[in-house]
Amino acid sequence: MNHTETFEQAVSGLVQAGQRIWQQGWCPATSSNFSRRLSENSCAITVSGRDKGHLQAADIMQVDLDGQPLDGKKPSAETLLHTRLYRRDAGIGAVLHTHSLKATLVSMHCGPQITFEGLELLKAFAGQSTHDTRLVIPVFDNSQDIAALAAEVERWMAAHGTGHAYLIRGHGLYTWGSDLPEALRHLEALEFLLDYYWHAVCKPAPKKNMNAMVREERQ
Amino acid sequence: MNHTETFEQAVSGLVQAGQRIWQQGWCPATSSNFSRRLSENSCAITVSGRDKGHLQAADIMQVDLDGQPLDGKKPSAETLLHTRLYRRDAGIGAVLHTHSLKATLVSMHCGPQITFEGLELLKAFAGQSTHDTRLVIPVFDNSQDIAALAAEVERWMAAHGTGHAYLIRGHGLYTWGSDLPEALRHLEALEFLLDYYWHAVCKPAPKKNMNAMVREERQ
Amino acid sequence: MNHTETFEQAVSGLVQAGQRIWQQGWCPATSSNFSRRLSENSCAITVSGRDKGHLQAADIMQVDLDGQPLDGKKPSAETLLHTRLYRRDAGIGAVLHTHSLKATLVSMHCGPQITFEGLELLKAFAGQSTHDTRLVIPVFDNSQDIAALAAEVERWMAAHGTGHAYLIRGHGLYTWGSDLPEALRHLEALEFLLDYYWHAVCKPAPKKNMNAMVREERQ
Amino acid sequence: MNHTETFEQAVSGLVQAGQRIWQQGWCPATSSNFSRRLSENSCAITVSGRDKGHLQAADIMQVDLDGQPLDGKKPSAETLLHTRLYRRDAGIGAVLHTHSLKATLVSMHCGPQITFEGLELLKAFAGQSTHDTRLVIPVFDNSQDIAALAAEVERWMAAHGTGHAYLIRGHGLYTWGSDLPEALRHLEALEFLLDYYWHAVCKPAPKKNMNAMVREERQ
Repeated sequence: MNHTETFEQAVSGLVQAGQRIWQQGWCPATSSNFSRRLSENSCAITVSGRDKGHLQAADIMQVDLDGQPLDGKKPSAETLLHTRLYRRDAGIGAVLHTHSLKATLVSMHCGPQITFEGLELLKAFAGQSTHDTRLVIPVFDNSQDIAALAAEVERWMAAHGTGHAYLIRGHGLYTWGSDLPEALRHLEALEFLLDYYWHAVCKPAPKKNMNAMVREERQ
Repeated sequence: MNHTETFEQAVSGLVQAGQRIWQQGWCPATSSNFSRRLSENSCAITVSGRDKGHLQAADIMQVDLDGQPLDGKKPSAETLLHTRLYRRDAGIGAVLHTHSLKATLVSMHCGPQITFEGLELLKAFAGQSTHDTRLVIPVFDNSQDIAALAAEVERWMAAHGTGHAYLIRGHGLYTWGSDLPEALRHLEALEFLLDYYWHAVCKPAPKKNMNAMVREERQ
Repeated sequence: MNHTETFEQAVSGLVQAGQRIWQQGWCPATSSNFSRRLSENSCAITVSGRDKGHLQAADIMQVDLDGQPLDGKKPSAETLLHTRLYRRDAGIGAVLHTHSLKATLVSMHCGPQITFEGLELLKAFAGQSTHDTRLVIPVFDNSQDIAALAAEVERWMAAHGTGHAYLIRGHGLYTWGSDLPEALRHLEALEFLLDYYWHAVCKPAPKKNMNAMVREERQ
Repeated sequence: MNHTETFEQAVSGLVQAGQRIWQQGWCPATSSNFSRRLSENSCAITVSGRDKGHLQAADIMQVDLDGQPLDGKKPSAETLLHTRLYRRDAGIGAVLHTHSLKATLVSMHCGPQITFEGLELLKAFAGQSTHDTRLVIPVFDNSQDIAALAAEVERWMAAHGTGHAYLIRGHGLYTWGSDLPEALRHLEALEFLLDYYWHAVCKPAPKKNMNAMVREERQ
């Protein structure tokens, strides 16, 4: 866990993580937000609306675990989804929210929960020692009411455990770890698994009427 | 808005934007063109035929809002599509035209207009505060008569408003913003949405007769 | 045309072109070869078997237009396909052979010739001023008898003209230009068009019996 | 062969190979492991759990050909799969295990062995001089019992020869060469061939009931 790291250490780690995540194409158009725990009661998190692939130190701020700014900057609207995780589990040291194409496709078209099983990369998740297991990721409906969305996440976790990740429909992925390297490892594993799931398990037929489209083109 | 920036500032911004857009693969084979407003009556725009991913200062020129060169260089044939936008809306500070595979596929095969709805990334567009909205992108037939194409765009915008972007069939995407960072944010959001649309909404069946092809291969 | 450039200029251009082509993923596993004309009777070409994405000066050699080494190094087996083009057309200053996935897929599965039409990127080819045109690319059967393959290419060009490019089935793409930047522009346009063609025109159904496969998996 | 290279040379080569493999996306989430032979009885191999795209010298260790550490570090669980290859064939100087999406898709869904034929890139494999050949890659069931998995590989090789590579179902690819550059060339060729195979030969229909999914979405 990273409870004792300084704000400066948290900033440099988040800046580098952002560059790495950006290079994968998982945070387009200033989407996504990243955070690290600073203490029992606070974390460092990206400021709203910044380019997450090219973060400056000024793009990282401090908030308490109610999501209130400690330095006068404006946090992301989704800050509460990060702080609830830190409050829920003292073992969580970093939270990453990304916005990849595959997370969006799977969350929109592959049902209310995603089950990964039988793949070696499941061993990338903390505590997993075999591929012969299943990982269930819930998909929550998207909402601009973040407090309501956070409460829905809490209800699900109260029933099923914290787990490793969740999807918000048409919005993206949340994952976390005991520290930033573990959260990044979980993120890379999940993006791989979502890509696999889209290609091999769930790829719905296009919804548009192709004959109608061809007619349109003929016009 | 960027009305007061100098030509040197405009050049360095366009060079960097080109590098970033090139790395995404959205300006192959010297396609695409990029511009920024310099004043009420002029803008900086890429010179015709240059490699947009590796621009030099000499690859950027100044034109008035009739698309006439102010420095003797040869502007892109499509300059008029940029200048009409600056003339139409004083709030537009940058225009980006790109040429991605997904923009080409969607513009050729998915009907006369594209509607994006229900996705969080719609919040990347200026003024959008919820995913629960729709964004309509018109698709105009391609033409080498740029004045006629510009007039068709004007007619559409007179009826439907300026909006955020349009596609030209088999040609690519135009988008814009109050400044270059906003235009880049809109571009990244649109490329993501076009990729999503191709994968999940509109992917026509191949048009060739596969049996015929297999016969050809057997020969 | 680049007839007068020195060997040193040719080397530095080919090294940079190789880095750029490698970054696109078009020359895996030491495949591909690149050349530039040095004079009426000679060209610079990559040495057999080198990593084309990380070329050193020593990886470039000089050959005459019969494909014979002028400096004792071992040229690529396919050198004759380059030199025949330089001999055929004094206007050709550079030849690029690449080995992308899309060129391989299209050459194997989309029939004996590929026709691109109606796309703006066709204007990337020298002399093209409109999208309202067609570009035909022949697909030749692969052979390890390069002299025989070169003769087949010659026969086709005698009947249809030199054109801009050809494919070898399961092997890759050949394209050329008056100088290296034009050849690179043609290459980028062709890779884009081949990607488009695979996605939108020709994507054959998998050939394997899926039921048989599922049975295999069940075992 | 590389029997005589020093540990320092082996380390720098493995660090660079890891950067190159990482850039291709073939070692996500600290997966994969890479090794080079040091002597008749030992090799250098990546330490368990490190980020293979950003290796430090401390992330490489020495083991004997029974897979026992020679320097007190903890080797990857799969070390035995590397050392068995070095023991089996004195001509093997490097072994690369990667974990790409395509290797996972093909190993899970395309049957018990993969046959590549008729493609020019088959000439990338040592000793191949024509595309008119076939390369068979066995797919072994995944297991956390590495000794048992190694024994199964041995049995297959005793019957069919060492070959150039094998897949482990849902786990990834193993390939090797007389030295690290040859192993990298084999890896790049195999990733290309697996990508080709997935696109053109074996792409099973999604397994989920799409009507059921659409119903889920409607809810």
